[in-house]
Amino acid sequence: MSQESHSPLTALGQAARAAAHVLAVTTTAQKNRALAAIADALEANSSAILAANAKDIEAARASGMGDAMLDRLLLNEARLAGIIGDVRKVIVLDDPVGSELESRVLENGLRLSRRRVPIGVIGVIYEARPNVTIDIASLCLKTGNASILRGGRETFHSNLALVQVIQQALELSGLPAASVQYIDNPDRALVTELLRLDRYVDMIIPRGGAGLHKMCKEQSTIPVIIGGFGISHTFVDASADLARALDVIENAKVQRPSACNALDTLLVHQAIAAEFLPALVARMNQCHVTLVADGNAQALLKGAKQLREAGPEDFDTEWLSLTLGVKLVKDVDEALAHMREHNAGHSDAILTNDLAHAERFINGAGSAAVYVNASTRFTDGGQFGLGAEVAVSTQMLHARGPMGLVELTSYKWVGQADYLSRP
Amino acid sequence: MSQESHSPLTALGQAARAAAHVLAVTTTAQKNRALAAIADALEANSSAILAANAKDIEAARASGMGDAMLDRLLLNEARLAGIIGDVRKVIVLDDPVGSELESRVLENGLRLSRRRVPIGVIGVIYEARPNVTIDIASLCLKTGNASILRGGRETFHSNLALVQVIQQALELSGLPAASVQYIDNPDRALVTELLRLDRYVDMIIPRGGAGLHKMCKEQSTIPVIIGGFGISHTFVDASADLARALDVIENAKVQRPSACNALDTLLVHQAIAAEFLPALVARMNQCHVTLVADGNAQALLKGAKQLREAGPEDFDTEWLSLTLGVKLVKDVDEALAHMREHNAGHSDAILTNDLAHAERFINGAGSAAVYVNASTRFTDGGQFGLGAEVAVSTQMLHARGPMGLVELTSYKWVGQADYLSRP
Repeated sequence: MSQESHSPLTALGQAARAAAHVLAVTTTAQKNRALAAIADALEANSSAILAANAKDIEAARASGMGDAMLDRLLLNEARLAGIIGDVRKVIVLDDPVGSELESRVLENGLRLSRRRVPIGVIGVIYEARPNVTIDIASLCLKTGNASILRGGRETFHSNLALVQVIQQALELSGLPAASVQYIDNPDRALVTELLRLDRYVDMIIPRGGAGLHKMCKEQSTIPVIIGGFGISHTFVDASADLARALDVIENAKVQRPSACNALDTLLVHQAIAAEFLPALVARMNQCHVTLVADGNAQALLKGAKQLREAGPEDFDTEWLSLTLGVKLVKDVDEALAHMREHNAGHSDAILTNDLAHAERFINGAGSAAVYVNASTRFTDGGQFGLGAEVAVSTQMLHARGPMGLVELTSYKWVGQADYLSRP
Repeated sequence: MSQESHSPLTALGQAARAAAHVLAVTTTAQKNRALAAIADALEANSSAILAANAKDIEAARASGMGDAMLDRLLLNEARLAGIIGDVRKVIVLDDPVGSELESRVLENGLRLSRRRVPIGVIGVIYEARPNVTIDIASLCLKTGNASILRGGRETFHSNLALVQVIQQALELSGLPAASVQYIDNPDRALVTELLRLDRYVDMIIPRGGAGLHKMCKEQSTIPVIIGGFGISHTFVDASADLARALDVIENAKVQRPSACNALDTLLVHQAIAAEFLPALVARMNQCHVTLVADGNAQALLKGAKQLREAGPEDFDTEWLSLTLGVKLVKDVDEALAHMREHNAGHSDAILTNDLAHAERFINGAGSAAVYVNASTRFTDGGQFGLGAEVAVSTQMLHARGPMGLVELTSYKWVGQADYLSRP
């Protein structure tokens, strides 16, 4: 009937849909037993998994992959033990499925509630790290969702070994093996097929670079969770505690520069620039941070070990490294205007002691996470106490910011009794 | 930079985005004053609006439009007064923007809350009825969203007149006229442009037939709210109160057959078929309902005035008329299996006195709204007490079932104090 029925992924989609129907009525205890079986099976099969990973590493090295990428790809006993530990942590998290979001009796006599349900089938497209395979599979399983995984070519053998172990453990636990499936055909056209398998797949989560997200947005007929991008800003207001501001900035910039919540652009109120920027220079020099400053700021950044003038693209650049943009602004509104112009959307902060400015910033910033006197590094499922992080959404619909188990669920309306609708 | 910047809709998108930034920080009182100004202006300009509508009616009649469609298109004083009354009703609804969904202090010292915010810019593509223009514009405005509207060709003059009045009222109220914009170029290619204007538009709501929804799903790079479709089922279990079952079925089928929540397929437990189906025949005859039955049911439906045997497509047909599919099943699981095979997803009900069956049905049905001993006709924003209905979503993400004001919002995370993330 529909075009998807001719896709090579049809059988996989049908099996996933059937598995999702089973998972939707599986108890939390049974899902937890399956997770425990998966953790045990990963332990029991660790040498086979590491051998498969060694094949991937060998092929990657032969293809000339750099050391940083090789390290992302590598599994060893300690890392595998960490991954297995993460599966066991998912067991102790609360299962959101079945809980009621609200419940009331309407004037028309209907008892109406909204009950959390699994989303259904989740397609995940990801890149190098093999831990994502286990991570996503266990979070989807905990929330009663079937998953269809498609990892990068570099992790092919690792992923196949991991999914095989998962599927065996699922069967042993009495759940459908198709609850977790892997697209093992390396043809890239199958990614496009997956993005159009809307008859069987309810949500796509891309985990990777901007190019992957863009492709998913443009080609998918299935709702996509877009995330992870956006220039992170911190605005140092005139009333900020400047000593603490330095600590926040160092934390936001230096703690993990490659993270998507690391600080990219520092906006400084012009009234305190002459006092604050020399102190910033000293701290950033200690941390080996390169400053990229607009003309006005540059004049006050004398003594910076690494300093250059900002060009037209610099305030639109997510650095992912020890580089920091610096710009002077005249007030909170100019800071907000700059953020709107320069792709804010992920995590932004104001450092201030002025309550009205704090509120203006909170309301005016369009970001998924907005902070007052706090580091942008807080934007993280672990920091937020979600117990897990599936993705960090920077879109407006369904979920924003760190997505945990709850964000892998939808809801249904449940109405009971009194029989008749009275129009 | 991106492809959208060459679209003829770029200027419109930019203006909408700028208006959305203003609306996001506009107080509820100011938004309500603008809504009151719109209602007043619609009253003051009613003769111009009716004159514009008369042009549309004349053109539609000349093109040979049928009476039912002409009636959907028609505005008169009473209908316009009704529309104006609806705008005033939106004023008294609670504004969800700014309310906090949750707030807690994390172990790491951060006070974290989730605060409701407008979605941003909402694109709405709709068909004949001119009341949708006012309806959507006022609900978007109340929730601080800018809207870009694209109505059908048949309502061109009516819509232009309405939007002009809205924009004048917005300006008088000190809000940007671009808060509500209309695509007044009749070129159909602009619908496709709108669906790819992802740089400026955050959500697309199609209001129309299955073809419109399919086109939006396939072509949009912006999240789309898919809704309104799905076969509605009611399963009469062996333990149902049969007298009340007849009332529920009549209500669900006859009250408004053209509605998307009207009953399509009746599934009857085989153990009560011999007793129940003759009573059903009597009731459906009274209501002039045509029965389309599977072979087993047909034998028990003797005396039905309109009766035919179901063909292969009949249980996949949304009747939107006084027709009812009837099929026997052996238990709740067979009923659920039939529903999964036949595009359930909107509203489905079980009539039963068995608590375990009720729970099994609630959990097993994948529909946006599931009822126990109630009519599927309850699925409606008004019945659910939402105060308004923007659409009825049948997808899994963002919102399911009737969407009111809350479903026109997203949220942002707001984190305050303690300065440093401790990893």
